[in-house]
Amino acid sequence: MDRPVISFLTDFGPDLAPAVCRGVILSIARDVQIVDISHNVRKFAILEGAYLLWSAVPWLPVGIHLAVVDPGVGTARLPIAIRAGRGDILVGPDNGLLMPAAAVLGGVVEARVIENRELLLPQRAHTFHGRDIFAPLAAHLATGRRFEEVGRVVPAGSLVELVFPNPVVAGGVLEAGVAFVDGFGNLRLFATPDDLRSTLGELAVGDPIVVEALAQAGPLVVETAAWARTFADRLVGELLAYMDSSGQLAISENQGHAARRLGIGAGDRVRLHSPRSRGGGG
Amino acid sequence: MDRPVISFLTDFGPDLAPAVCRGVILSIARDVQIVDISHNVRKFAILEGAYLLWSAVPWLPVGIHLAVVDPGVGTARLPIAIRAGRGDILVGPDNGLLMPAAAVLGGVVEARVIENRELLLPQRAHTFHGRDIFAPLAAHLATGRRFEEVGRVVPAGSLVELVFPNPVVAGGVLEAGVAFVDGFGNLRLFATPDDLRSTLGELAVGDPIVVEALAQAGPLVVETAAWARTFADRLVGELLAYMDSSGQLAISENQGHAARRLGIGAGDRVRLHSPRSRGGGG
Amino acid sequence: MDRPVISFLTDFGPDLAPAVCRGVILSIARDVQIVDISHNVRKFAILEGAYLLWSAVPWLPVGIHLAVVDPGVGTARLPIAIRAGRGDILVGPDNGLLMPAAAVLGGVVEARVIENRELLLPQRAHTFHGRDIFAPLAAHLATGRRFEEVGRVVPAGSLVELVFPNPVVAGGVLEAGVAFVDGFGNLRLFATPDDLRSTLGELAVGDPIVVEALAQAGPLVVETAAWARTFADRLVGELLAYMDSSGQLAISENQGHAARRLGIGAGDRVRLHSPRSRGGGG
Repeated sequence: MDRPVISFLTDFGPDLAPAVCRGVILSIARDVQIVDISHNVRKFAILEGAYLLWSAVPWLPVGIHLAVVDPGVGTARLPIAIRAGRGDILVGPDNGLLMPAAAVLGGVVEARVIENRELLLPQRAHTFHGRDIFAPLAAHLATGRRFEEVGRVVPAGSLVELVFPNPVVAGGVLEAGVAFVDGFGNLRLFATPDDLRSTLGELAVGDPIVVEALAQAGPLVVETAAWARTFADRLVGELLAYMDSSGQLAISENQGHAARRLGIGAGDRVRLHSPRSRGGGG
Repeated sequence: MDRPVISFLTDFGPDLAPAVCRGVILSIARDVQIVDISHNVRKFAILEGAYLLWSAVPWLPVGIHLAVVDPGVGTARLPIAIRAGRGDILVGPDNGLLMPAAAVLGGVVEARVIENRELLLPQRAHTFHGRDIFAPLAAHLATGRRFEEVGRVVPAGSLVELVFPNPVVAGGVLEAGVAFVDGFGNLRLFATPDDLRSTLGELAVGDPIVVEALAQAGPLVVETAAWARTFADRLVGELLAYMDSSGQLAISENQGHAARRLGIGAGDRVRLHSPRSRGGGG
Repeated sequence: MDRPVISFLTDFGPDLAPAVCRGVILSIARDVQIVDISHNVRKFAILEGAYLLWSAVPWLPVGIHLAVVDPGVGTARLPIAIRAGRGDILVGPDNGLLMPAAAVLGGVVEARVIENRELLLPQRAHTFHGRDIFAPLAAHLATGRRFEEVGRVVPAGSLVELVFPNPVVAGGVLEAGVAFVDGFGNLRLFATPDDLRSTLGELAVGDPIVVEALAQAGPLVVETAAWARTFADRLVGELLAYMDSSGQLAISENQGHAARRLGIGAGDRVRLHSPRSRGGGG
């Protein structure tokens, strides 16, 4: 039989806390493969965590996805497990973190509150539900415990929603949020190439695109990028807009670091328009 | 049969050196599960490494725990293996690093010097015993080689001791060392909630507690926290004192970074007292 | 049967992208052991990546080595797989990255262009061949697909070469490049202790060696180290030159950080000579 896979995403940082959770998992399900997605989500950044989880899960085998970005740990927010259409089970807090991933995995088939004490650790710290609730539940599910044993059903409609912010198109300008800065400094946007096409018309490699970087703190930076298929379509140090490997719109500097150059990061916004049209006015 | 688990803690940093040790382990024991606890222990910080190992091992399955924080590599300090009461074996240098973990795992049952060349790599670099001595020994033990084969017995009393520094209570003030700053900036202290209760009397959620942060270098910072059960008992940006998930006393800023705010880190000290009593005088 | 091992080195950073590749691998080859060598190679630094891969592979079991440092992703550079003399297969871009590792694993036995679409993902992003080409190919080879299925043979002589820069000995001075700064700040050099002996004569512990650190940007720093067998042969804070655990020449500060102290890093150069001889003149 295939070894079960548990993917694992948190804002815990790389040390100690993820290892404690791994220890709990392996104490229950010794044969599981744990795949770390990231433990460097910005602290308490539910939206960023949700984006990373949503980005990663389509590439993972059907399995269990354990995700903990949980500013409300120890409060009344529910611990939940969600069965998704593809057959995966998502485990984490009911704060929206799991919802985009559930959607991309085929939608919420059924959600349950985690309340069966047999599937949890006996003690319960108020500050570390990753260890005491989420990790042991994920491990028990990996050993074949049935989803129905988790706890009572929660109607899907009563789960905390999280919807990625839509881009805004107006007056020839596309305004979109920065979802994530990847390891290369590329800005992954909450927008698609089609959103840009609906703003600027058809795109050909080399077409100039003005990028206005709107940092929440810090000056407005305006630079000109060009539409590209891959990084090397531009000279080293030049900016490009392109379809990233998830099919989303992204901004990069060839062999550079676009986020540092433009002075923005996750949670900030960009405006994109053609050199002929005017930006601003937002 | 269950796959054996080797946990792994070092101050090597994340790159190359841990991978070389993993390669050595898997060359000997292909089926082992390696669980990284941390490779970001501050360089040569035996006390911090010992604290992290002690924190993690109770949550790991019974297995082999490989730990290397070893400023004395290549000197006369002994390489040792310790069998602990729960059935685990700890492998590393005889510099105190393994001792608190051995204690929490049921105490030292037997310790042996690592000297059986059959269980080591043939070559021996003076600067990388992790690769040449500790990793191969851990792997051979994971394949079922007997503990008695490691080398001659060392009397437990002759091992290098390491005892966590006790807090000091005097004049209504609790003074305790900072053991570790976790990924959230929380200060894990060498003290328990009971130590604080013996200083201040019973604690209720919301009780104010003055925190004096004594950095070895840098100014004294004084702030007021409150006793809390979990982070969300305080407003965002407020300080709390609480029982952490290991049962120890800790200081946190709700959704902030207490260590940065207070200007202290591992190795520094804090004084805690009620607003009615006086601190200082140390 | 032994579980196959895939080692994994990239400049992707620790988050998301390596996890996506792990997911692709496990979707094809569930039982594989993935050993991360590093995901923190400096971006686009092919030479540094080649050095780390070359350093690590001799310690790994015979297996598949997946390496992606790929500034030319999406251009005409070939994706290749190389069978090496020891029996390993290296998978990555044809930009020199794999060549030193292939050499240390017994040399290139056969190289093939990756072009069999059955062994790749169906879609093909222009910016993420790690996910779409290299990871699935490595996984298929791990499941036992034959090397001959990868694609047509490329003559070894037509692969892009990468040779580590040789040290230069002249006038009693050894000049060598810095290959890598390890987690302890030690400078791993493109030179061997024998190169230093051929410059200075026989070396005894304690022999003084002048180190001139030539940063590409920044001032010349000159300090005196001493030849040592291990770190503790020098006082804390003193510099040493020694044979590192790969048999190469290295510069360290005992319990310090030589790279920061000397103001140099990977890609910079050092000159070593005896206090009696003169440096400079390069």
